[in-house]
Amino acid sequence: MRILYHLPLSPYARKVRLVLAEKRLPFELRIERIWDRQDSYLELNPACTVPTLIEDNGLVIPDSRVICEYLEESYPDTSLLSRAQPERVETRRLVAWFDEKFYNEVVRNLYWEKTLKQSFRLGSPDGNALRAGYANLKQHLLYIGWLAEHRRWLAGSTLSVADFTAAAMLSTLDFMGDVDWSVSPAAKDWYARIKSRPCFRAILADRVNGMTPPPHYTDLDF
Amino acid sequence: MRILYHLPLSPYARKVRLVLAEKRLPFELRIERIWDRQDSYLELNPACTVPTLIEDNGLVIPDSRVICEYLEESYPDTSLLSRAQPERVETRRLVAWFDEKFYNEVVRNLYWEKTLKQSFRLGSPDGNALRAGYANLKQHLLYIGWLAEHRRWLAGSTLSVADFTAAAMLSTLDFMGDVDWSVSPAAKDWYARIKSRPCFRAILADRVNGMTPPPHYTDLDF
Repeated sequence: MRILYHLPLSPYARKVRLVLAEKRLPFELRIERIWDRQDSYLELNPACTVPTLIEDNGLVIPDSRVICEYLEESYPDTSLLSRAQPERVETRRLVAWFDEKFYNEVVRNLYWEKTLKQSFRLGSPDGNALRAGYANLKQHLLYIGWLAEHRRWLAGSTLSVADFTAAAMLSTLDFMGDVDWSVSPAAKDWYARIKSRPCFRAILADRVNGMTPPPHYTDLDF
Repeated sequence: MRILYHLPLSPYARKVRLVLAEKRLPFELRIERIWDRQDSYLELNPACTVPTLIEDNGLVIPDSRVICEYLEESYPDTSLLSRAQPERVETRRLVAWFDEKFYNEVVRNLYWEKTLKQSFRLGSPDGNALRAGYANLKQHLLYIGWLAEHRRWLAGSTLSVADFTAAAMLSTLDFMGDVDWSVSPAAKDWYARIKSRPCFRAILADRVNGMTPPPHYTDLDF
């Protein structure tokens, strides 16, 4: 059985869980406490990040972007990357945008500060970081809404890994009650559409010790 | 003519310059002062980073990793990404490693602190960042040396975009006189091999206002 090492709230691991489920590829989840830096895990992934995917044939694939390129090439039936270059470029541009810019400006300031930072024993959340995260989130929601108003899906006319990258990040923030959806009705409508897909069910069922998501987290008509 | 927006010392732009030259794809360089955030450039690349590539047909491609995937798919004759999945995974893993981990732990602490930070008017270099950068660089040179001792090229038996990603980062640090090559003879030997390739000539000829590289920067037998 395919194995995915993850943390329940990791947005990068959630992206891969969504892509695997959308492609109907069965997998088993294993939690990896990356802050323990276990030798056995460092051998699989020297960067000691989640996710890491282990294929049935033993192939070890670290890093969500490397995993998604691999899955697209190996299981192209349910394609999440257009064949036309302009759409491929736009999809990958948005994946990089959310993985790097959205993560650094928003998710790191909220998810890292409120959860991972304690796990790594690096202290309590920094107020300035939280304030910056909430302020930046508004701007990013407006950008997502702008994309959703001009296109059926974020990168164009078809559902792509860009949608799952953005939705995974937002699902982590939404679990923590950090998303004010009233900022952008268009972003909310896009998120409601992707959240209603069967691939999202397992993510919505996640529960984490000591944290209760807000009632609208699992509500498909929030 | 293909256009590449860049900054002379940007390691991400240097990676793309090396890959374009290795694939013998002609291009024209244009310097983009990203700290000015010009509207015309934000339209091409909303993340306002370098590099951005404009193809002859007008296709706009931001982000070094997006550009390299595009170039590999569009101009596969000189391939820099193996066809076999284990090597593709290892190449992309190392590209992510250098783009993210090496950049954040080393290049950001040295290149950003000493050059870009002033351009963005964010103050002078932080001593703690510089010290962390030099300390981390030693560990990374040992890892590069370990890879070079066990494989002909960093990701395996063939030259790949992983080599150009690492070499571009190191070339920026070497220009600033920051690399102590005595730390790893194997890393130095690998760098001498890649630096001797014709694709590297333009990078070694770069000169930046107010900065003089050390004599060994251009020496192929340094």
